[in-house]
Amino acid sequence: MSRLRLRLSISLDGFVAGSNQSAQHPLGEGGEDLHQWVFPLAAWRKPHGLEGGKTDESTPVLEEELTNSGATIMGRNMFGGHPGPWDRTKPWMGWWGARPPFHHPVFVVTTHPRPPLEMEGGTVFTFVTDGIEQAYDLARRAAKGKDVALAGGANISQQYLNAGLVDEMQLHIVPILLGSGARLFDGVKHLHDLRLVKTVAAPNVTHLKFSRE
Amino acid sequence: MSRLRLRLSISLDGFVAGSNQSAQHPLGEGGEDLHQWVFPLAAWRKPHGLEGGKTDESTPVLEEELTNSGATIMGRNMFGGHPGPWDRTKPWMGWWGARPPFHHPVFVVTTHPRPPLEMEGGTVFTFVTDGIEQAYDLARRAAKGKDVALAGGANISQQYLNAGLVDEMQLHIVPILLGSGARLFDGVKHLHDLRLVKTVAAPNVTHLKFSRE
Repeated sequence: MSRLRLRLSISLDGFVAGSNQSAQHPLGEGGEDLHQWVFPLAAWRKPHGLEGGKTDESTPVLEEELTNSGATIMGRNMFGGHPGPWDRTKPWMGWWGARPPFHHPVFVVTTHPRPPLEMEGGTVFTFVTDGIEQAYDLARRAAKGKDVALAGGANISQQYLNAGLVDEMQLHIVPILLGSGARLFDGVKHLHDLRLVKTVAAPNVTHLKFSRE
Repeated sequence: MSRLRLRLSISLDGFVAGSNQSAQHPLGEGGEDLHQWVFPLAAWRKPHGLEGGKTDESTPVLEEELTNSGATIMGRNMFGGHPGPWDRTKPWMGWWGARPPFHHPVFVVTTHPRPPLEMEGGTVFTFVTDGIEQAYDLARRAAKGKDVALAGGANISQQYLNAGLVDEMQLHIVPILLGSGARLFDGVKHLHDLRLVKTVAAPNVTHLKFSRE
Protein backbone atom coordinates (compact mmCIF):
# COMPACT_ATOMS: atom_id res chain seq x y z
CA MET A 1 0.00 0.00 0.00
CA SER A 2 1.15 3.51 -0.76
CA ARG A 3 2.63 5.29 2.29
CA LEU A 4 3.14 9.00 2.96
CA ARG A 5 6.78 9.52 3.90
CA LEU A 6 7.94 12.80 5.40
CA ARG A 7 11.65 13.52 5.20
CA LEU A 8 13.39 16.62 6.46
CA SER A 9 16.74 17.89 7.64
CA ILE A 10 16.37 19.55 11.01
CA SER A 11 18.76 21.45 13.25
CA LEU A 12 19.51 20.44 16.81
CA ASP A 13 17.26 23.28 17.94
CA GLY A 14 14.38 22.10 15.77
CA PHE A 15 14.43 24.31 12.69
CA VAL A 16 13.95 23.06 9.14
CA ALA A 17 14.67 26.47 7.60
CA GLY A 18 16.39 29.61 8.81
CA SER A 19 14.73 32.99 9.19
CA ASN A 20 14.27 35.56 6.40
CA GLN A 21 13.63 33.16 3.55
CA SER A 22 14.15 34.87 0.19
CA ALA A 23 15.14 34.19 -3.39
CA GLN A 24 18.74 34.64 -2.30
CA HIS A 25 18.28 32.34 0.70
CA PRO A 26 15.41 30.01 -0.17
CA LEU A 27 16.17 27.98 2.95
CA GLY A 28 16.54 31.07 5.14
CA GLU A 29 19.69 32.35 6.77
CA GLY A 30 21.89 29.41 7.67
CA GLY A 31 19.36 27.00 6.21
CA GLU A 32 21.76 25.60 3.62
CA ASP A 33 23.90 24.28 6.45
CA LEU A 34 21.12 21.78 7.12
CA HIS A 35 21.93 20.06 3.86
CA GLN A 36 25.72 19.96 3.83
CA TRP A 37 25.62 16.29 4.73
CA VAL A 38 23.78 15.41 1.53
CA PHE A 39 25.45 17.53 -1.16
CA PRO A 40 28.69 15.50 -1.39
CA LEU A 41 26.88 12.17 -1.75
CA ALA A 42 26.95 10.41 -5.10
CA ALA A 43 23.40 9.22 -4.37
CA TRP A 44 22.29 12.86 -4.17
CA ARG A 45 24.36 14.11 -7.10
CA LYS A 46 23.06 11.53 -9.56
CA PRO A 47 19.35 12.60 -9.62
CA HIS A 48 20.59 16.19 -9.83
CA GLY A 49 22.49 15.32 -13.03
CA LEU A 50 25.91 15.55 -11.39
CA GLU A 51 28.68 13.02 -11.58
CA GLY A 52 31.01 11.79 -8.87
CA GLY A 53 30.53 12.15 -5.15
CA LYS A 54 31.14 9.99 -2.15
CA THR A 55 29.51 7.14 -0.33
CA ASP A 56 29.10 7.02 3.46
CA GLU A 57 26.67 5.86 6.15
CA SER A 58 24.08 8.32 4.80
CA THR A 59 24.01 6.67 1.39
CA PRO A 60 21.61 3.81 2.19
CA VAL A 61 19.33 6.25 4.04
CA LEU A 62 19.13 8.53 1.03
CA GLU A 63 18.72 5.63 -1.36
CA GLU A 64 15.85 4.31 0.73
CA GLU A 65 14.18 7.72 0.49
CA LEU A 66 14.49 7.83 -3.26
CA THR A 67 13.41 4.22 -3.74
CA ASN A 68 9.76 3.53 -4.32
CA SER A 69 8.70 7.18 -4.40
CA GLY A 70 6.18 7.69 -7.17
CA ALA A 71 5.16 11.27 -6.39
CA THR A 72 6.11 14.17 -4.14
CA ILE A 73 4.07 16.72 -2.18
CA MET A 74 5.51 20.07 -1.10
CA GLY A 75 4.35 23.43 0.19
CA ARG A 76 4.32 26.56 -1.87
CA ASN A 77 7.44 28.00 -0.24
CA MET A 78 9.38 24.90 -1.10
CA PHE A 79 8.32 25.17 -4.72
CA GLY A 80 9.54 28.74 -4.69
CA GLY A 81 6.90 30.98 -3.27
CA HIS A 82 8.36 34.43 -2.96
CA PRO A 83 11.08 34.80 -5.53
CA GLY A 84 11.45 38.55 -5.63
CA PRO A 85 12.30 40.17 -8.97
CA TRP A 86 12.31 37.93 -12.03
CA ASP A 87 11.61 38.16 -15.73
CA ARG A 88 7.84 38.49 -15.68
CA THR A 89 7.54 37.73 -19.39
CA LYS A 90 8.19 34.11 -18.42
CA PRO A 91 6.19 32.07 -15.93
CA TRP A 92 7.93 31.57 -12.56
CA MET A 93 9.39 28.08 -12.61
CA GLY A 94 10.22 27.73 -8.92
CA TRP A 95 13.65 27.24 -7.42
CA TRP A 96 14.35 23.87 -8.94
CA GLY A 97 15.78 24.81 -12.33
CA ALA A 98 14.75 23.51 -15.74
CA ARG A 99 15.41 19.89 -14.80
CA PRO A 100 14.24 19.30 -11.22
CA PRO A 101 15.57 16.27 -9.35
CA PHE A 102 12.20 14.62 -8.74
CA HIS A 103 11.62 12.93 -12.11
CA HIS A 104 8.00 12.22 -11.19
CA PRO A 105 4.75 14.13 -10.48
CA VAL A 106 5.04 16.83 -7.79
CA PHE A 107 1.97 18.32 -6.08
CA VAL A 108 2.37 21.82 -4.68
CA VAL A 109 -0.14 22.79 -2.00
CA THR A 110 -0.90 26.47 -2.54
CA THR A 111 -3.69 29.03 -2.52
CA HIS A 112 -2.76 30.29 -5.99
CA PRO A 113 -4.25 28.27 -8.85
CA ARG A 114 -2.13 27.87 -11.96
CA PRO A 115 -1.90 25.29 -14.74
CA PRO A 116 0.50 22.35 -14.38
CA LEU A 117 4.12 22.99 -15.23
CA GLU A 118 5.93 20.30 -17.16
CA MET A 119 9.69 20.32 -16.69
CA GLU A 120 12.53 18.37 -18.24
CA GLY A 121 13.33 14.92 -16.89
CA GLY A 122 9.83 13.79 -15.96
CA THR A 123 8.93 16.31 -13.25
CA VAL A 124 5.44 17.82 -13.58
CA PHE A 125 4.39 20.38 -10.96
CA THR A 126 0.64 20.33 -10.29
CA PHE A 127 -0.77 23.13 -8.12
CA VAL A 128 -3.43 22.01 -5.67
CA THR A 129 -5.68 24.60 -4.06
CA ASP A 130 -8.10 22.38 -2.14
CA GLY A 131 -5.79 21.49 0.74
CA ILE A 132 -3.64 18.66 1.95
CA GLU A 133 -6.13 15.83 1.63
CA GLN A 134 -6.81 16.55 -2.01
CA ALA A 135 -3.08 16.81 -2.66
CA TYR A 136 -2.57 13.44 -1.02
CA ASP A 137 -5.38 11.85 -3.06
CA LEU A 138 -3.92 13.18 -6.30
CA ALA A 139 -0.36 12.21 -5.36
CA ARG A 140 -1.36 8.72 -4.33
CA ARG A 141 -3.13 8.17 -7.61
CA ALA A 142 -0.18 9.56 -9.58
CA ALA A 143 2.24 7.35 -7.63
CA LYS A 144 0.48 4.23 -8.94
CA GLY A 145 1.08 2.03 -5.93
CA LYS A 146 4.44 3.55 -5.05
CA ASP A 147 4.93 5.74 -1.97
CA VAL A 148 4.36 9.48 -1.77
CA ALA A 149 7.21 11.67 -0.48
CA LEU A 150 6.37 14.68 1.66
CA ALA A 151 9.26 17.08 1.13
CA GLY A 152 8.25 19.95 3.47
CA GLY A 153 8.53 22.69 4.44
CA ALA A 154 7.48 23.17 8.03
CA ASN A 155 3.95 24.44 7.54
CA ILE A 156 2.76 21.72 5.20
CA SER A 157 4.48 19.07 7.31
CA GLN A 158 2.65 20.29 10.41
CA GLN A 159 -0.65 20.06 8.57
CA TYR A 160 -0.04 16.46 7.52
CA LEU A 161 1.30 15.46 10.95
CA ASN A 162 -1.67 16.99 12.74
CA ALA A 163 -4.07 15.25 10.37
CA GLY A 164 -2.43 11.94 11.28
CA LEU A 165 -1.66 11.20 7.63
CA VAL A 166 2.10 10.64 7.88
CA ASP A 167 3.10 6.95 7.78
CA GLU A 168 6.84 7.45 7.98
CA MET A 169 9.03 10.31 9.15
CA GLN A 170 12.74 10.38 8.38
CA LEU A 171 14.50 13.15 10.29
CA HIS A 172 18.06 14.07 9.43
CA ILE A 173 19.24 15.72 12.64
CA VAL A 174 22.09 18.10 11.88
CA PRO A 175 24.30 19.01 14.87
CA ILE A 176 24.06 22.78 14.45
CA LEU A 177 21.94 25.57 15.92
CA LEU A 178 20.02 27.95 13.66
CA GLY A 179 18.59 30.04 16.51
CA SER A 180 15.51 31.11 14.57
CA GLY A 181 13.43 30.16 11.57
CA ALA A 182 10.70 27.62 10.89
CA ARG A 183 10.25 24.94 13.55
CA LEU A 184 9.08 21.56 12.32
CA PHE A 185 7.00 20.73 15.40
CA ASP A 186 5.39 24.10 16.14
CA GLY A 187 1.79 23.36 17.00
CA VAL A 188 2.23 19.60 16.62
CA LYS A 189 0.93 17.94 19.77
CA HIS A 190 1.63 14.27 19.17
CA LEU A 191 3.08 11.81 16.75
CA HIS A 192 0.00 9.72 15.94
CA ASP A 193 1.67 6.34 16.56
CA LEU A 194 4.87 7.22 14.70
CA ARG A 195 7.58 5.34 16.61
CA LEU A 196 11.33 5.44 16.36
CA VAL A 197 12.33 2.35 14.41
CA LYS A 198 15.87 3.07 13.21
CA THR A 199 18.82 5.29 14.07
CA VAL A 200 21.78 5.73 11.74
CA ALA A 201 24.92 7.63 12.74
CA ALA A 202 26.66 9.28 9.80
CA PRO A 203 29.16 12.12 9.24
CA ASN A 204 27.60 15.43 10.33
CA VAL A 205 24.11 14.00 10.68
CA THR A 206 22.04 11.48 12.64
CA HIS A 207 19.14 9.84 10.84
CA LEU A 208 16.07 9.00 12.91
CA LYS A 209 13.39 6.98 11.15
CA PHE A 210 9.88 6.88 12.59
CA SER A 211 7.19 4.59 11.28
CA ARG A 212 3.77 3.31 12.13
CA GLU A 213 2.68 -0.15 11.10
CA MET B 1 42.05 18.46 33.30
CA SER B 2 38.61 18.84 34.79
CA ARG B 3 35.87 19.21 32.17
CA LEU B 4 32.34 20.61 32.44
CA ARG B 5 29.94 18.01 31.12
CA LEU B 6 26.32 18.88 30.40
CA ARG B 7 23.89 15.99 30.18
CA LEU B 8 20.18 16.23 29.56
CA SER B 9 17.26 14.27 28.24
CA ILE B 10 15.48 16.24 25.56
CA SER B 11 12.30 15.67 23.59
CA LEU B 12 12.20 15.56 19.80
CA ASP B 13 10.72 19.07 19.88
CA GLY B 14 13.51 20.39 22.08
CA PHE B 15 12.10 20.47 25.60
CA VAL B 16 13.98 19.35 28.71
CA ALA B 17 10.96 19.82 30.99
CA GLY B 18 7.23 20.08 30.44
CA SER B 19 5.13 23.10 31.29
CA ASN B 20 3.62 23.87 34.72
CA GLN B 21 6.45 22.54 36.87
CA SER B 22 5.26 21.95 40.44
CA ALA B 23 5.93 19.79 43.47
CA GLN B 24 3.58 17.22 41.97
CA HIS B 25 5.29 17.44 38.57
CA PRO B 26 8.86 18.62 39.20
CA LEU B 27 9.69 17.94 35.55
CA GLY B 28 6.52 19.59 34.30
CA GLU B 29 3.59 17.93 32.60
CA GLY B 30 4.86 14.99 30.56
CA GLY B 31 8.41 15.69 31.69
CA GLU B 32 8.83 12.31 33.36
CA ASP B 33 8.43 10.68 29.96
CA LEU B 34 11.84 12.12 29.09
CA HIS B 35 13.44 9.75 31.58
CA GLN B 36 11.62 6.48 30.95
CA TRP B 37 14.67 5.17 29.10
CA VAL B 38 16.85 5.48 32.21
CA PHE B 39 14.64 4.25 35.06
CA PRO B 40 14.81 0.51 34.20
CA LEU B 41 18.60 0.47 33.90
CA ALA B 42 20.63 -1.29 36.59
CA ALA B 43 23.29 1.41 36.16
CA TRP B 44 20.69 4.03 37.15
CA ARG B 45 19.07 2.01 39.94
CA LYS B 46 22.31 1.28 41.77
CA PRO B 47 23.26 4.90 42.72
CA HIS B 48 19.62 5.38 43.70
CA GLY B 49 19.91 2.51 46.19
CA LEU B 50 17.77 0.15 44.14
CA GLU B 51 18.60 -3.41 43.18
CA GLY B 52 18.04 -5.17 39.88
CA GLY B 53 17.37 -3.57 36.54
CA LYS B 54 18.40 -4.22 32.98
CA THR B 55 21.36 -3.60 30.74
CA ASP B 56 21.04 -2.27 27.19
CA GLU B 57 22.81 0.04 24.71
CA SER B 58 22.22 2.98 27.08
CA THR B 59 24.22 1.35 29.88
CA PRO B 60 27.72 2.35 28.73
CA VAL B 61 26.46 5.88 28.01
CA LEU B 62 25.10 6.25 31.53
CA GLU B 63 28.17 4.64 33.07
CA GLU B 64 30.38 7.08 31.19
CA GLU B 65 28.33 9.94 32.64
CA LEU B 66 28.70 8.68 36.17
CA THR B 67 32.39 7.87 35.80
CA ASN B 68 34.86 10.52 36.74
CA SER B 69 32.30 13.02 38.02
CA GLY B 70 33.57 14.64 41.19
CA ALA B 71 30.92 17.31 41.60
CA THR B 72 27.59 18.41 40.12
CA ILE B 73 26.12 21.82 39.28
CA MET B 74 22.38 22.38 38.96
CA GLY B 75 19.89 25.24 38.86
CA ARG B 76 17.56 26.08 41.69
CA ASN B 77 14.52 24.51 40.01
CA MET B 78 16.34 21.23 39.66
CA PHE B 79 17.23 21.27 43.34
CA GLY B 80 13.56 21.85 44.07
CA GLY B 81 12.77 25.48 43.78
CA HIS B 82 9.07 25.92 44.17
CA PRO B 83 7.80 23.04 46.25
CA GLY B 84 4.46 24.42 47.35
CA PRO B 85 3.18 23.62 50.87
CA TRP B 86 5.56 21.77 53.14
CA ASP B 87 6.34 21.47 56.86
CA ARG B 88 8.00 24.82 57.49
CA THR B 89 9.36 23.69 60.84
CA LYS B 90 11.95 21.71 58.82
CA PRO B 91 14.28 23.14 56.18
CA TRP B 92 13.26 22.34 52.60
CA MET B 93 15.50 19.50 51.42
CA GLY B 94 14.79 19.65 47.70
CA TRP B 95 13.25 16.92 45.61
CA TRP B 96 16.01 14.40 46.00
CA GLY B 97 15.06 12.66 49.24
CA ALA B 98 17.22 12.00 52.29
CA ARG B 99 19.83 10.10 50.29
CA PRO B 100 20.31 11.82 46.91
CA PRO B 101 21.93 9.84 44.10
CA PHE B 102 24.93 12.14 43.61
CA HIS B 103 27.20 10.96 46.44
CA HIS B 104 29.45 13.99 45.95
CA PRO B 105 29.32 17.81 46.34
CA VAL B 106 26.45 19.51 44.49
CA PHE B 107 26.42 23.25 43.78
CA VAL B 108 23.01 24.86 43.35
CA VAL B 109 23.00 28.18 41.48
CA THR B 110 20.34 30.32 43.12
CA THR B 111 19.54 33.84 44.27
CA HIS B 112 18.57 32.64 47.75
CA PRO B 113 21.51 32.22 50.16
CA ARG B 114 21.31 29.40 52.64
CA PRO B 115 23.83 27.27 54.53
CA PRO B 116 25.08 24.02 52.99
CA LEU B 117 22.86 20.98 53.39
CA GLU B 118 24.57 17.71 54.17
CA MET B 119 22.60 14.65 53.13
CA GLU B 120 23.11 10.92 53.59
CA GLY B 121 25.42 9.08 51.22
CA GLY B 122 27.98 11.82 50.62
CA THR B 123 25.85 14.45 48.88
CA VAL B 124 26.34 18.01 50.17
CA PHE B 125 24.26 20.77 48.58
CA THR B 126 26.05 24.12 48.52
CA PHE B 127 24.03 27.17 47.48
CA VAL B 128 25.89 29.62 45.27
CA THR B 129 24.54 33.13 44.83
CA ASP B 130 27.31 34.73 42.79
CA GLY B 131 26.46 33.16 39.46
CA ILE B 132 27.63 30.40 37.16
CA GLU B 133 31.35 31.19 37.11
CA GLN B 134 31.64 31.07 40.87
CA ALA B 135 29.68 27.84 40.95
CA TYR B 136 32.03 26.35 38.38
CA ASP B 137 35.10 27.46 40.34
CA LEU B 138 33.77 25.92 43.53
CA ALA B 139 32.67 22.72 41.81
CA ARG B 140 35.99 22.30 40.03
CA ARG B 141 37.88 22.65 43.27
CA ALA B 142 35.54 20.22 45.03
CA ALA B 143 35.90 17.71 42.19
CA LYS B 144 39.66 17.47 42.88
CA GLY B 145 40.72 16.79 39.30
CA LYS B 146 37.63 14.86 38.33
CA ASP B 147 35.02 16.27 35.94
CA VAL B 148 32.08 18.48 36.86
CA ALA B 149 28.59 17.38 35.78
CA LEU B 150 26.10 20.02 34.71
CA ALA B 151 22.71 18.47 35.41
CA GLY B 152 20.38 21.26 34.15
CA GLY B 153 17.74 22.53 33.95
CA ALA B 154 17.27 24.61 30.83
CA ASN B 155 18.03 28.05 32.22
CA ILE B 156 21.33 27.21 33.90
CA SER B 157 22.39 25.14 30.88
CA GLN B 158 21.74 28.10 28.59
CA GLN B 159 23.89 30.31 30.79
CA TYR B 160 26.83 27.90 30.70
CA LEU B 161 26.43 27.26 26.96
CA ASN B 162 26.32 30.97 26.17
CA ALA B 163 29.39 31.58 28.33
CA GLY B 164 31.24 28.96 26.29
CA LEU B 165 32.08 26.97 29.42
CA VAL B 166 30.66 23.59 28.40
CA ASP B 167 33.32 21.06 27.32
CA GLU B 168 31.02 18.15 26.67
CA MET B 169 27.29 17.88 25.98
CA GLN B 170 25.52 14.55 26.13
CA LEU B 171 21.97 14.79 24.78
CA HIS B 172 19.57 11.94 25.27
CA ILE B 173 17.05 12.55 22.50
CA VAL B 174 13.73 10.97 23.40
CA PRO B 175 11.37 10.31 20.47
CA ILE B 176 8.35 12.07 21.95
CA LEU B 177 6.77 15.52 21.66
CA LEU B 178 6.05 17.59 24.78
CA GLY B 179 4.53 20.52 22.89
CA SER B 180 5.47 23.08 25.54
CA GLY B 181 7.79 23.62 28.47
CA ALA B 182 11.43 24.64 28.84
CA ARG B 183 13.50 24.56 25.65
CA LEU B 184 17.16 23.70 26.06
CA PHE B 185 18.39 25.95 23.25
CA ASP B 186 16.20 29.04 23.76
CA GLY B 187 18.49 32.00 23.32
CA VAL B 188 21.54 29.86 22.58
CA LYS B 189 23.10 31.09 19.35
CA HIS B 190 25.97 28.72 18.80
CA LEU B 191 27.73 25.70 20.17
CA HIS B 192 31.19 27.19 20.88
CA ASP B 193 33.14 24.44 19.10
CA LEU B 194 31.10 21.60 20.55
CA ARG B 195 31.06 18.98 17.80
CA LEU B 196 29.13 15.75 17.43
CA VAL B 197 31.60 12.98 18.26
CA LYS B 198 29.43 9.96 19.01
CA THR B 199 25.92 8.66 18.34
CA VAL B 200 24.45 5.69 20.17
CA ALA B 201 21.11 4.15 19.24
CA ALA B 202 19.31 2.57 22.19
CA PRO B 203 15.75 1.56 23.09
CA ASN B 204 13.50 4.66 23.23
CA VAL B 205 16.42 7.10 23.09
CA THR B 206 19.26 8.28 20.87
CA HIS B 207 22.40 9.53 22.60
CA LEU B 208 24.31 12.34 20.89
CA LYS B 209 27.64 13.24 22.44
CA PHE B 210 29.24 16.58 21.64
CA SER B 211 32.73 17.49 22.69
CA ARG B 212 35.39 20.07 22.10
CA GLU B 213 39.05 19.20 22.31
